Amino acid sequence: MALGDNGSIRIGVIGGGQLARMMVPPAIHLGLEISVLAETEGMSAKRAADQVGDYRDPETVYAFAETVDVVTFDHEHVPQEILTELERRGVPVHPKPHALQFAQDKILMREKLAELGVPVPQWAAVEDEASLQEFIDANGGRAVVKTARGGYDGKGVRVVSNADEVRDWFTALAEDARGGFLLVEELVDFTRELSQLVARRPSGEMRHWPVVETIQRDGVCAEVLAPAPVSNEAILDEAARIGEAVASGVDVTGVLAVEMFETTDGRVLVNELAMRPHNSGHFSIEGSVTSQFEQHLRAVADLPLGDTSMTAPAAVMVNVLGGPEEGPMPVRYQKVLAEYPSAKIHSYGKQPRPGRKVGHVTVVGDSLEEARAEAQAAANAFG
Amino acid sequence: MALGDNGSIRIGVIGGGQLARMMVPPAIHLGLEISVLAETEGMSAKRAADQVGDYRDPETVYAFAETVDVVTFDHEHVPQEILTELERRGVPVHPKPHALQFAQDKILMREKLAELGVPVPQWAAVEDEASLQEFIDANGGRAVVKTARGGYDGKGVRVVSNADEVRDWFTALAEDARGGFLLVEELVDFTRELSQLVARRPSGEMRHWPVVETIQRDGVCAEVLAPAPVSNEAILDEAARIGEAVASGVDVTGVLAVEMFETTDGRVLVNELAMRPHNSGHFSIEGSVTSQFEQHLRAVADLPLGDTSMTAPAAVMVNVLGGPEEGPMPVRYQKVLAEYPSAKIHSYGKQPRPGRKVGHVTVVGDSLEEARAEAQAAANAFG
Repeated sequence: MALGDNGSIRIGVIGGGQLARMMVPPAIHLGLEISVLAETEGMSAKRAADQVGDYRDPETVYAFAETVDVVTFDHEHVPQEILTELERRGVPVHPKPHALQFAQDKILMREKLAELGVPVPQWAAVEDEASLQEFIDANGGRAVVKTARGGYDGKGVRVVSNADEVRDWFTALAEDARGGFLLVEELVDFTRELSQLVARRPSGEMRHWPVVETIQRDGVCAEVLAPAPVSNEAILDEAARIGEAVASGVDVTGVLAVEMFETTDGRVLVNELAMRPHNSGHFSIEGSVTSQFEQHLRAVADLPLGDTSMTAPAAVMVNVLGGPEEGPMPVRYQKVLAEYPSAKIHSYGKQPRPGRKVGHVTVVGDSLEEARAEAQAAANAFG
Repeated sequence: MALGDNGSIRIGVIGGGQLARMMVPPAIHLGLEISVLAETEGMSAKRAADQVGDYRDPETVYAFAETVDVVTFDHEHVPQEILTELERRGVPVHPKPHALQFAQDKILMREKLAELGVPVPQWAAVEDEASLQEFIDANGGRAVVKTARGGYDGKGVRVVSNADEVRDWFTALAEDARGGFLLVEELVDFTRELSQLVARRPSGEMRHWPVVETIQRDGVCAEVLAPAPVSNEAILDEAARIGEAVASGVDVTGVLAVEMFETTDGRVLVNELAMRPHNSGHFSIEGSVTSQFEQHLRAVADLPLGDTSMTAPAAVMVNVLGGPEEGPMPVRYQKVLAEYPSAKIHSYGKQPRPGRKVGHVTVVGDSLEEARAEAQAAANAFG
C-alpha cells in the first residue's frame, strides 16, 4: 500500500529551523500531516513542533519516527548510525542514509562526483601540511581548504596560500577517528555562482527548476536571481543535466541543491551539495508553480512531483540578516509593508543576532532588474 | 503602541474550519503568531488549534481572548453579547460587532444597504403570509424567501410562489424573540453571479481584488472565475465601487465579500455579505500577489495591506465536494497529482460527506478557458 492510500500521510521532519517551518504551509494546503522534532522550544518551526529533543540521541529519534509514516530533515546532521537503524526498522527515510552521506562528508562527495564523471574543480584529500603545500604550489599558489564535515555558511572554509594556515585543523583532525583528511580545491576563476535545484522521488521521477544565480556576501547567501542571467543558454541545459546526473547518481530522494561555479571559460563545475530544501530555492514559494518545500514533501511521500515552471519571468530573493540593533522583523512591519506592498515578506520567527538569517524577501516580476531593486530595498528596510 | 512594535503579533481565530486553516500558511510566512479556538478536536485548522471549546460559551471565549492580541473569525456565528463584552474589556475584535451584525442578520443588512444607497433587489421584511403573498403577487408571482439568520450555503433560502410554502418558518419564527420577520426579495433576472472582495483595516485603508464570477450548483459555490468575464468593463469598476462603499459604510475590518448579481439589463445588485475570507476568494492563494488570507491577517492586525494584483491573466477555482463513496482526498493523490502537475490541490483535512466541501483546486494560467478546463478535470478526478 502506498502512503496516503488510507487518506493519511504523516511526514516527520527532524530539525526545527526555517526549512522545517517553510514545509508547514504546503503540508497544510496539500492536507499532509507534518510533525517536527525540534532541538529546543520556540524554534522557527514551533507551530508544527510536536516533539522537542536531541536528534543525536537514538531513542529520541526512534520514538519520534514511530509517530510518522516517513522521516525527512531540516538539516543534514543526523548521525548515520541512527539513520541506518531507522531503515533497518522499516521506517522510510528520505533522503536515504547512503545518499545523505555525500552531503555529510565533502571528501566522500568529491570521490562520488569524480566516479560519476561530473565536472568539479581540481581537488585532493590531504592529511598533512606537506601534501597540502604541494597542491597549493601546483595550483597557482592559493587554494581553498575545507573540513570534510561540519562546514556550514562559510565556516569550515578557508582560502590559504600556506599550509600552516590550517595547522589547527590538522591538529584537531589528527584526533578524529575518520582519519584526519582535509579537502583542498583549486580557486576557481568564476563569473558567477549557480544553484541547480532538483527533486527526485523514490520511483526515480525527477523535476528541476531553472538554474539560479546565488550572490554570496561574507560567505553567506545574500541574494538569489531566478532564472540565473547566464552568459549563454547552453549553461541552463548543462546545469540541469548535471543536477539530474547527481540526483540519480547518488540516489537522492527529496530536494537536492547542487551549487556550482560558472567559470570564466564557460564551464560549469560542481562546488557543494545540499540534500534538503535550500536557501537558493526560497524564491520558488512565489516564483514557481510548485515550491521547493511542496516538492520536497511530495518527493519524500513518494507522490507525483509538481510543475516547476516559473510563475513570472523573474523572481529575486534577498535574505534578511540580523543586525546589532534591530528587534524581530515584525517591529518594522508598519513601515516595510506600507512601502513595499508587492514584496513577499518571510520572517522565521527568530530573535536576531548579527549575521543570523532571520527572514527573506521575494519579489516576482517581469525583469530581474526591477524585481531585484525592489527586493533589495524591502530587505534593507529591515536593517 | 501598535501591534507588532515589540516583535509579536498574536492573532486569535474563533472557529476551526477551513478558513482558519488557510490563515495558518500566511501567518507562518509573515511571522505572525496564530491560535485557533476550534469547536472540536481534529478540525480543519487543528495544526493551529491551541484551544478547543464552544464559541457560544462566554467564559471560553474570554479565556481564549486573553491569550492573543486581536480576535477574528472563521465564521460569523459568535453571539453579539460576547463580542461586545470582548470590546468592553479592551480586546481588539475584527470585524467589530457593530459591523458583523450586518453579516449575521439579513434584514439588518438590507436596511443598512438601503440607507447607504447601494443597489439591491426589491425586498421587504414580512411577518405573516398575507404580506408575503402581497409581495409575491406584486413581483411577478414568484420570490425568494430567506430566514434573516442562520442562512448558509443555500439553507434558509427558498424560491416560492405561494406564501404557505414557508408556513413552517413563520411558525418557528413566531416563537423567536427577534419578532419573526422573514426577508423576501424579487427573483432577479441575472446574467451571472459576482463576488467582490475588499479588505479594510481599522485605519480605513482599503484594497480590492478584481471582481470574480461565482458559479453555484445546488445552492453551493462550485467554481470561481477570476477575473469575472463581465459583459462590459464598466461593471468591474461598479463592483469595486460598491464593494468599497459597503466596506466603509458598515465599517468592516478584515476581508469582506460582497456577493452580487450582474442583471440582464446591465446593473449590479448586492445579494449577500460575508465578513471574513470567502470561498470566492480562494483563487487568490495562487492567483493574487496577496491572498485574501494574508490580507485578512494584515487587516485585523492593522498592518498595511498588500498588492491585490493578479499573478497571471486568469485563475479558476473549483471546489471538491465529498461524495458517497470516496475517502479523504489524499487517497487519490497518486492519480491526481500525476495527471495534473500544475493544478494546486487544497485539502481541508476533512472526512467526506456527500455535498460537504472537502477541498478545492486552483489553476492559474493565460486564459480562463484553459485554466477552467484543467481545474474542472483535476477536481473531477477526486470524484
